[in-house]
Amino acid sequence: MQIQTPDWVKHAVFYQIFPDRFARTQQSRKFLLKNARWEDWNEIPTLQGYKGGDLWGVMEQLDYLQDLGINAIYFTPIFQSASNHRYHTHDYYQVDPLLGGNAAFMELLEAAHHRDIKVVLDGVFNHASRGFFCFHDILENGPHSPWLDWFKVEGWPLSAYDGNYPANYVGWDGNRALPEFNHENPEVREYIMQVAEHWLRLGIDGWRLDVPFCITAEGFWQEFRDRVKAANPEAYIVGEVWRDAREWLQGDQFDGVMNYLFTAPTIAFAAGDRVDLEQVQDRSYDPYPALFAPDYAQKMQELLKLYPWEIQLTQLNLLASHDTARLLSIAGGDPASVELSTLLLLTFPGAPSIYYGDEVGLPGKLDPDSRRGFPLEAHWNLEVLAYHRQLIAIRHQYRALRIGSYEVLYAEGTVYVFARCLDEEELIVAVNVGTEPAKVHFEVNSLKTQPKQHLYGSAEATWTDELTLSLPARSGSILA
Amino acid sequence: MQIQTPDWVKHAVFYQIFPDRFARTQQSRKFLLKNARWEDWNEIPTLQGYKGGDLWGVMEQLDYLQDLGINAIYFTPIFQSASNHRYHTHDYYQVDPLLGGNAAFMELLEAAHHRDIKVVLDGVFNHASRGFFCFHDILENGPHSPWLDWFKVEGWPLSAYDGNYPANYVGWDGNRALPEFNHENPEVREYIMQVAEHWLRLGIDGWRLDVPFCITAEGFWQEFRDRVKAANPEAYIVGEVWRDAREWLQGDQFDGVMNYLFTAPTIAFAAGDRVDLEQVQDRSYDPYPALFAPDYAQKMQELLKLYPWEIQLTQLNLLASHDTARLLSIAGGDPASVELSTLLLLTFPGAPSIYYGDEVGLPGKLDPDSRRGFPLEAHWNLEVLAYHRQLIAIRHQYRALRIGSYEVLYAEGTVYVFARCLDEEELIVAVNVGTEPAKVHFEVNSLKTQPKQHLYGSAEATWTDELTLSLPARSGSILA
Repeated sequence: MQIQTPDWVKHAVFYQIFPDRFARTQQSRKFLLKNARWEDWNEIPTLQGYKGGDLWGVMEQLDYLQDLGINAIYFTPIFQSASNHRYHTHDYYQVDPLLGGNAAFMELLEAAHHRDIKVVLDGVFNHASRGFFCFHDILENGPHSPWLDWFKVEGWPLSAYDGNYPANYVGWDGNRALPEFNHENPEVREYIMQVAEHWLRLGIDGWRLDVPFCITAEGFWQEFRDRVKAANPEAYIVGEVWRDAREWLQGDQFDGVMNYLFTAPTIAFAAGDRVDLEQVQDRSYDPYPALFAPDYAQKMQELLKLYPWEIQLTQLNLLASHDTARLLSIAGGDPASVELSTLLLLTFPGAPSIYYGDEVGLPGKLDPDSRRGFPLEAHWNLEVLAYHRQLIAIRHQYRALRIGSYEVLYAEGTVYVFARCLDEEELIVAVNVGTEPAKVHFEVNSLKTQPKQHLYGSAEATWTDELTLSLPARSGSILA
Repeated sequence: MQIQTPDWVKHAVFYQIFPDRFARTQQSRKFLLKNARWEDWNEIPTLQGYKGGDLWGVMEQLDYLQDLGINAIYFTPIFQSASNHRYHTHDYYQVDPLLGGNAAFMELLEAAHHRDIKVVLDGVFNHASRGFFCFHDILENGPHSPWLDWFKVEGWPLSAYDGNYPANYVGWDGNRALPEFNHENPEVREYIMQVAEHWLRLGIDGWRLDVPFCITAEGFWQEFRDRVKAANPEAYIVGEVWRDAREWLQGDQFDGVMNYLFTAPTIAFAAGDRVDLEQVQDRSYDPYPALFAPDYAQKMQELLKLYPWEIQLTQLNLLASHDTARLLSIAGGDPASVELSTLLLLTFPGAPSIYYGDEVGLPGKLDPDSRRGFPLEAHWNLEVLAYHRQLIAIRHQYRALRIGSYEVLYAEGTVYVFARCLDEEELIVAVNVGTEPAKVHFEVNSLKTQPKQHLYGSAEATWTDELTLSLPARSGSILA
């Protein structure tokens, strides 16, 4: 089978938006909750509080995003949900009224497309919420409900809210707030397929799939792909799979996954011993123990061999998400760890995804802290913003960084050097994670050119028989 | 103020449909619950079971309804709801998927309008359900919810499902399944107004309002009328008010009410001592004790004086509803009680409303029994159906029966005679509820004509100086 993935993803730089926290409209377009008592935008978030971000607010920030170089947005869930993260879907056909509802979303979608910015939504299809209509009917009518076969009811009575009694239905991860669909029921399957098609027909550019590994019904994701691609052949399907995802990346299911297999080694290499274990332990990725360059090279090479190249180019690469602590906090506040990782992110094959706020230096420990309100401009770290802009711009400028080959040129101690090449376009990326300057030299046989022009950073390159690189401490450079 | 009510209502014969129980589509247009295990259609209903009636089913019965003479349908609630009666609204913008969803409703609305059949929906605006999004958010997020002011929360924690603890919020009639809106919140008010406008813009012909007397926020129903009539000046607004409704019928709120002040005396007169008290006691109307003709005449004359004439013509008159036992069961199965009452219903000013199934002799004690599945044709009482057809046809034929004056001519013992007159059109309606034939004679000074042509029944009329009527036992007649 020839594997086909959407071309636009290969050239995309994503921005991940947690809608309750990115931007609150400055205009008064709301008719509901105009005067709501939101949780203070600038205070540390709580697990249950809403800060009142909305899609009109996102619309008002499209200039900002475009200026940053973003050409795709991945929204964590936007559908009607009784939770600030909206992973507890209440209605798959309604954008949350707190966000502006379907009308605001359609307006945003049009505005984004007008700027050639793609929009990918988060599909939570493994489970719904206690308030989701069909499950709610079971809560209200018990064995009389016609929706019984839609969920995994195991006994009576159900106890949806009282933890002192068995729930008597299957909830995701044992959580009774998240009743799991019965995907063996063909009608449930059809329902989910139609939801996916519906939003594609309305114009979205793809689906990010929440915990797709939990849905094990045979052929489910194959059918999902078939129907999504029939609705929009260029739609992007990206699964939340934290580890080896070969099962889903053979071309018949997803175009890519949240590439935590890139995230973890990159943090372990760039931040090294600075990693605050409390922020990463017992998660589904391992940004520790610290890695030196040879190990990092090996991890990247293994990763690049794990999936077909066409898939590699449409992976969703990231340093942080709503499900992790932010890298700045993982790295104990060390700015260089973030910059080095960001450089590696923006020069890796696959679509980089910036978690909102990372680009202005927003810190954040594990949830709920990693979901703070996007800071006021006065609190932005402008240096961080500047290098994000610069690295994104460089990626957009050089096709080699997006779809060129990836070749490790050198990996010793704290120094990691690789090339990205496409036809005549050849770039060298060099990183020294050590706290001392490094000077390395090595033979380069595989390049046609001798890149030495500084695109980023201040490494000095001298070409003789060998390439000699002088790398400041804790720095990274791109040469063309 | 000049009172204006919708002209079409004055000429309407309504049919009240309880959507889960009227008709189940014979075609397979469903994509959800195609193979659901519905409660047996022909078994006595349970409080929580669904029988799976739907709007496609109603569409397939439009021929039947039109043939019966129906030109308006009042649907008990059709919005998404986790209850078979759908008074527990889950979403005011979605027709229940079990009924076919918004698509089926729009198709039905068009088909009905194509036949000049109006469609009135049931608006449950006093309370929502535990699954209604905004209330559900409070259940899920407690004091963090931005929707707090939408309901009447009185303390924490809420106990929505466990009756062992105080609910800590106000439910309609103390029922925690039905959280009451806070109508003092201007946003709640606006939300409800917009719901009402939305469906009118989509083409519905009016709103029947559930327990409107429970909403006491100042000016609420006045604003409701203003906005409804602005959206559709011909829209009908009819409130569920069981007793003296003058408060709402001054022309600035409703066009009419569910006219139980007609229902109760009519049953008490026509069924008399046959009334099964168990089926009527402790309800909000009083179809007992038995009435003789003078008392009945007085009740009807008082009723006709209670509200302006323009309102009288758009009252919704009925003999039974989903909230009462069916008349056949109230009258202990006595067919004449039903026929006499139906005759009085179809000859009274205001729009008669037939509760689905009454026209084929469906029995039914109090809820849930009064909400049976519409019977198979083999179980229809064809005589009952025949006189329904005939009486409806006569009403349609004679404008006097719809908008003519109402004058009591005679009321003694078991005999009640009145005239309906409009210009040259004069009809006499005569009823003898007694078990013996009756012969009565009286002067008639107010008519221009001497009606004696039999439109219905077999009373013999002889005009001399007086009108002499010979009335069989337990019979009613219409003369023109």
